[in-house]
Formats: sequence, C-alpha cells, structure tokens
Amino acid sequence: MKPLKIGLAGLGTVGTGVLLLLKENGAALRQRCGRAIEVTAVSARSRGKDRGIDLSGMEWFDDPSELAASPAIDVFVELIGGEEGAAKAAVETALRAGKHVVTANKALLAMHGTDLARLAEARSLALNFEAAVAGGIPIVKTLRESLSGNQVTRIFGILNGTCNYILTRMRNEGQPFEAVLADAQRAGYAEADPTFDIEGHDTAHKLAILSSLAFGTEISFDTIYLEGISSITPADIEAAEELGYKIKLLGVALKTESGIEQRVHPTMLPSHSAIAQVDGVLNCVAVDGDFVGDIMLVGPGAGARPTASSVVSDIADIARGLILPVLGKPAAALAPHERAGMRTHEGGYYIRLSVYDRPGAFAAIATRMAQEGISLESIVQKHGSSLPPGSGRPSPPDEPTPVVIITHETTEAAIRQALDAIEADGHVDRKPQMIRIERL
Amino acid sequence: MKPLKIGLAGLGTVGTGVLLLLKENGAALRQRCGRAIEVTAVSARSRGKDRGIDLSGMEWFDDPSELAASPAIDVFVELIGGEEGAAKAAVETALRAGKHVVTANKALLAMHGTDLARLAEARSLALNFEAAVAGGIPIVKTLRESLSGNQVTRIFGILNGTCNYILTRMRNEGQPFEAVLADAQRAGYAEADPTFDIEGHDTAHKLAILSSLAFGTEISFDTIYLEGISSITPADIEAAEELGYKIKLLGVALKTESGIEQRVHPTMLPSHSAIAQVDGVLNCVAVDGDFVGDIMLVGPGAGARPTASSVVSDIADIARGLILPVLGKPAAALAPHERAGMRTHEGGYYIRLSVYDRPGAFAAIATRMAQEGISLESIVQKHGSSLPPGSGRPSPPDEPTPVVIITHETTEAAIRQALDAIEADGHVDRKPQMIRIERL
Repeated sequence: MKPLKIGLAGLGTVGTGVLLLLKENGAALRQRCGRAIEVTAVSARSRGKDRGIDLSGMEWFDDPSELAASPAIDVFVELIGGEEGAAKAAVETALRAGKHVVTANKALLAMHGTDLARLAEARSLALNFEAAVAGGIPIVKTLRESLSGNQVTRIFGILNGTCNYILTRMRNEGQPFEAVLADAQRAGYAEADPTFDIEGHDTAHKLAILSSLAFGTEISFDTIYLEGISSITPADIEAAEELGYKIKLLGVALKTESGIEQRVHPTMLPSHSAIAQVDGVLNCVAVDGDFVGDIMLVGPGAGARPTASSVVSDIADIARGLILPVLGKPAAALAPHERAGMRTHEGGYYIRLSVYDRPGAFAAIATRMAQEGISLESIVQKHGSSLPPGSGRPSPPDEPTPVVIITHETTEAAIRQALDAIEADGHVDRKPQMIRIERL
Repeated sequence: MKPLKIGLAGLGTVGTGVLLLLKENGAALRQRCGRAIEVTAVSARSRGKDRGIDLSGMEWFDDPSELAASPAIDVFVELIGGEEGAAKAAVETALRAGKHVVTANKALLAMHGTDLARLAEARSLALNFEAAVAGGIPIVKTLRESLSGNQVTRIFGILNGTCNYILTRMRNEGQPFEAVLADAQRAGYAEADPTFDIEGHDTAHKLAILSSLAFGTEISFDTIYLEGISSITPADIEAAEELGYKIKLLGVALKTESGIEQRVHPTMLPSHSAIAQVDGVLNCVAVDGDFVGDIMLVGPGAGARPTASSVVSDIADIARGLILPVLGKPAAALAPHERAGMRTHEGGYYIRLSVYDRPGAFAAIATRMAQEGISLESIVQKHGSSLPPGSGRPSPPDEPTPVVIITHETTEAAIRQALDAIEADGHVDRKPQMIRIERL
C-alpha cells in the first residue's frame, strides 16, 4: 500500500515530537498500520531555527494554508494553535481541498468544532483531535468508539495540568495560591499570563468537546459555567483535608432533566478516591455510561511526547482507513445543546464562613440554611474551642471565627439564597467561600 | 448500508446483556456506525429457558458451530467460554466460513490466540476481544490503536475482581483470607471452586493477551510466573499499611534485557497511589509507553452490562469496516515470546519472618542479607518492643517474634538465596513470607 503523506504545520514542541516519534517508532508503526506514514512537507514561522530534527527531504511552506492545499499531501496536521487566524484558515483550506485533518487545537474545536465537523463530513474526511483533550489520554477514541454502545450520563475530569500542579503543591506545602503560582511560573508549569489556565478557560475548551462527544450534541463553549482556582486558600485545603476531601479543579458535563449541565469549578472529592490521587500535572477523565458503568482514564495531560502519541494515533487511524463522524454522531444529526443553568445544580456543598463571634450569630446562620431546606452534614469551627461561635465561649467581641459547613444534597439556588441572606444579616465579615462536592 | 447480521452463541448473563444493550441503545448505535446491527440468529444450551429477553425473529441453532457456519450471518459472537470444546470449534468454523468473530473468551485466546489470529488474518477477518480482558475497560483498543505509536515497556494491572474484592475486605475488616473467601462465595463474588481466580490463573490468561498486544509477541501463557493470594495474612496487610503500602494481586508484563518478564503475584503498592485505591471488584490496567508516558484505565472488570459494552464496541468496529491485525501487529510478524525468568527480576521486597528470640538471631539474618548484597530500607519488629529480637530484650526463649523487612532494589535470585539460608540457619519457625514491591 502507498505511504500516507503528511503535511505538518507548526514545528513547536509537539510538532517536533511527532517527527521524533515517526523517526524512532515509524517502522513498528508501519507494521501496525499496513503502510508507511511519511511527513513530506512542513510549515512553520521561522525556517532557519534549529529544532534538533532533520527536515531535509521535506518540502517547506511559509504559509500553512498553502501546505494545506498542496496536492502532494493526504493528511494535514495542524499544530499551530489558536481559535482563529492561520490555524482555522489552514484547517478549512485542507478540508475544502479534500485532505484529512489531524489537530491538537482545542480552542479551534471548542469554538468552531461543529461547523468544521460538517465541513469534513460533507467530503467524507477525517477530522481527528485526540491530542486536543487531555494530552496522551485516549479519551476521544474511547468516547467515539469504545463506548459507542452506551448512553453517557456524566463525563468529568481533571483537564488542566497547571491548576492541578498548583493545587497539589498548595496542599503538600500549605502555601498560598499566589506563592505557588509564582513558583510554577518560574518552573515553567504556568504561563507568564496564567489567566487562561487558572480561571478555567482551558478546562472549559476541553469540556465543551468532551460534552459533545459524550452526549451527541453540538459543541457549546459559551454556555459553560466557569470558576477558577484563584479563590482557593490554604484554609480551604486544610479544612477539606480534615473533613476527608481533596480540592481539584474539575470540568463536569452532566445530563439532567432540564438539559446538559456544563461546569468548571473547584470541587471537593473524597480523599480516598482514585481521582483524588491524580496529582501534579497529571490529567484524568471519568465517564459514567449506562452499560459500562464508571470508568476512568489517567495520564499525562500535556507535554511534547504524550501529545505526539495522540497525534500519531489519529494519523494511524487514517492510515488504516478509519474515517468516522467527527463528533461520534454524524454532524447533521447532532442535537442542539440544551443548557441546564447552574441554579438547578444538585449536590452537597462545602461552605467556609468568617463569622463575627456574637451571641445569636450561629443560630441566625443555621436558621438561614433551614429556611432554604438545606440540611447540614457537619459543622466545624476551625480555631479555638469546638463550640460554635456565639454559644458562650469567651473570646474578644467582633473577632471573626472561621466556621466550615458541609451540607447534604441541595440545589445551587437554595445555597446561594441562604448565603446571600447570611451575608445580608451582617454576621460574616466577608463573602462566604463555597465549593461544590462532586458525587462519585 | 445493509444491516450487519450477528449470530450470537451463548445466552448467559453477558449474551442477554448484549441483546439488552442492542435493544435499548440500538438506534443511537446505528447512527454512530452508519448501519444497523441486528442479531438474526442465536445458539445456547437450553432453548426453553426464560432469559427475560425476546428472542422471537431470531433463528435458533442447537449447535454453535452450525450457527458459526450459517450463510445468513456476517459476524459470529462467541460467548460460550472455555479454552477448548464447543467455543474453539465454533470460532474456527466461523473464521473458516469467512465470518468475523467477536469473543469474550480469555482462556481460548490465552491458549490459542496466536493460531486464531493467523487463521483470521489469512482471510482478512476481524477477531475482536475487548471483553476478554478487564470487562468494560477499553484496554484492547487502547493498545491496538491509541498507543500504536509507542514502544510499550511495561503493562500491569488488577485483572481479577474476586481477588481484589477479597483483599479489599481483608484490609477493611482485618479478617483472615479463609473467612472472607467463604463470605465472598456466599455473596456470589467467588466461585464454589475458587482456585482459578485466587491462584491467579484468570489474571494470567488476561496478562498473556495484554503482553502480546503490548510487545508484539506471540501469546505465551505457560511461561507466566504464578502466585495467588491464599498465603496473604492479616499480619501482612497490617504491616503493609503501617509501612505505607497496600497489597494487590497484579499481573505484570515487563520488557527486560533478557526477554519479557510475565508474572502474577501479590504486590506491595504505595498506599497513596491511584492504583492502590482501585478496590472491590474494580479492575485497572496501567501502561508505560516511551512516548505517552504512564497511563492507567480503571473500571468494572466483569458483569453483564460492562462486558456487553465491550462486546458491542467490537461489533461496532466491524460495522464501521475497521478490520485490524488481531494482536496489533500482523500475526505473521509477531516475534516469538522470549521469556525472562523470575530469578533476574529486580525490585524491592517485603519480607515477614517469624524469628526465634535468641541471641544472635537477628545478626545472623542481617548477615545473610548482606552476603547477598541486599541492603535494607526498613526493619520493623511487629509486637513487643521496637528492639530487634536477640538484642537483649527479655522475653520467653524460643518464642517467635514477627519481623518485617523492606529491602532496597535487589534481584529475585539474591532474595531467594538469602531466605533459603535464613531458613536453613534455623532462626525462623516457618517459611518466610515474601511479597514483591512494584515500582510505580
């Protein structure tokens, strides 16, 4: 069989990783695919740069769209990045020119995935993107193929290595967020402008894609509820620990009666669960299916070599002639995304309050919870005696005391109502901290 | 496109699970595959039995081989079980008659997988077996497709739910093996004759298959080193806990300089690792690849519904026209399995000795270890004082005291030599317990 000819646009760490993989493991891969995979043309910003890899024999293109349109390639691999601009133009050009596309570009897919899927399927082309979600973890193929007999009810995961690294170090070292972030930036685990990671946007990009694959719906990025990790304090992490929880930033997509709930926020997970041990830059994705039950995949969520492994797996599928609907279901049959708002979210909550130690304060808080029908699983006063504030313990008046509450299952609407009332009552000296508990 | 016609042999829990899945999720699956999947013929031992599922409209065969040869089917699904007899005959018949085969039969594959792969590939047929290893966990497709750009260096996992359930309950309840086993038998988590599970044979069947897929070698079941869990005591579990370990039965296949090491035995794993949280009947498989790094898949290892999910995933691949080499690499290109014997195994060890409390006993033990070049990471005397026995602590003479040793990395040959010498010296009252520590 003829070699599969690849045009590779973007020669950053992942691009060179792909070239390295094909060089080192190309012979074995050829056996497994029944044909050779050859990168015959490349494109990148600077031609002269030494990337430590031999590019001789590969045609050079300054313009990725020109490469995408080249009649000499079968597959266009887009590793440029960015939701608009050169990447989008080149991918569209490739599909219009009848080339299969492999991409690692989560932003592009989160924003334009449904349209690109239509474009690819109209021409019976592959648009593969295993590397766009959770790096080396083969979650896209798992959803698109292995679980295709299942109705998925929930998909969730730790999808951003930077956030997980920061939370892991905060827990292990008791350091505040800002200090660990600064350190992570120095060590290269966080960007100079970390907003995109720490505020959850990157997780949301991946979640939007996973949600579509899991539920057979159009990709909907803008409807995701978003909360980052910058508000998490050592006090929260310590209290979580004592109550048997660890804090992780999760992306969660859930099928509910009122639609699909998509949310990214810090989450309390039982300390002894397997997912709570997914530390540092590792990622994981868990899927609940009606037949398979609960499965979880753990692995490196980024890095040149794991990402190259996924890019090459996508190319190998094309080499084997496997051309599937881009998002699992044919794009024309994808259901519109029906959003379930956060107010209907159901779950337990961790609440940390900074309460003025006045008579009646605690009773007032408990009353506000009761008024919203919220029942409490546990209450811990973090410092001083174990008595609730306002119950007679001698302490300086108007000295706020931290109180941590775990609620039984309730709704987001109820908890927000209760917390607003507690704040309005004037018994707390700042906005209450609220972290959702994820059922496992 | 025409429906894919399935002949299903074996209507036990998994077989009826497959029929149920196709009934409940068939319409969605049809969309995802681009064609319908229809079970048009079945075979089982007793025709009259009520299985709670409608078989009307399906042709009935008393003989599975007759079903396998029927010109009215495209795919033969073998859910009969057993490494010889009806299952083997029917699978061979199906392949000779040009039918694709899907099977959940790990024993058949462990014993005859390489030959069956040759038979299938000679006719360009699929022989899919996702359900044969780790139930609902999609590890076969992950190895065969997602990781095909990698050189795998190790694959290991918790592959038997019965053993994991017993070890989990022993740990949680402090009960001895025999009591938990009896209870597991009453609850249906262990067979009346549990040998096959608890002595590691079932794990070895799955390991033989995984090892072939991971390393591109012929399946070799007979060369697997085998140790079950019946020798594990509450004392071991307690000592492991105190030292920061949990005990799990693992199947491990490892590429070494002297060949492939395949072993099934109880293993010490760090308590805070994700794999150590895989409890009860759950399974998991971990893979170390040269590009992807370390990934792990966790999920239900058995059960009608998870297994049906995997069987249907195999059928769906055939419906989509994906026909791959059975064991990843073409059968003709599989390398012979070169066995690395256990004596060259390298790792740390947990040793529990029952030592006569005599002067010089401890020095003799330490000397034997030193003579084999084994260095000790920690030593714990389990009861009484923390002094080593023989070091002057007053206690009744000839009263054995448990001593637990953790070694640094050494070889199996060295540890066996040392333990033989310690036993021969007469300082211990029984055979030493030895449990390998698995590097993570």
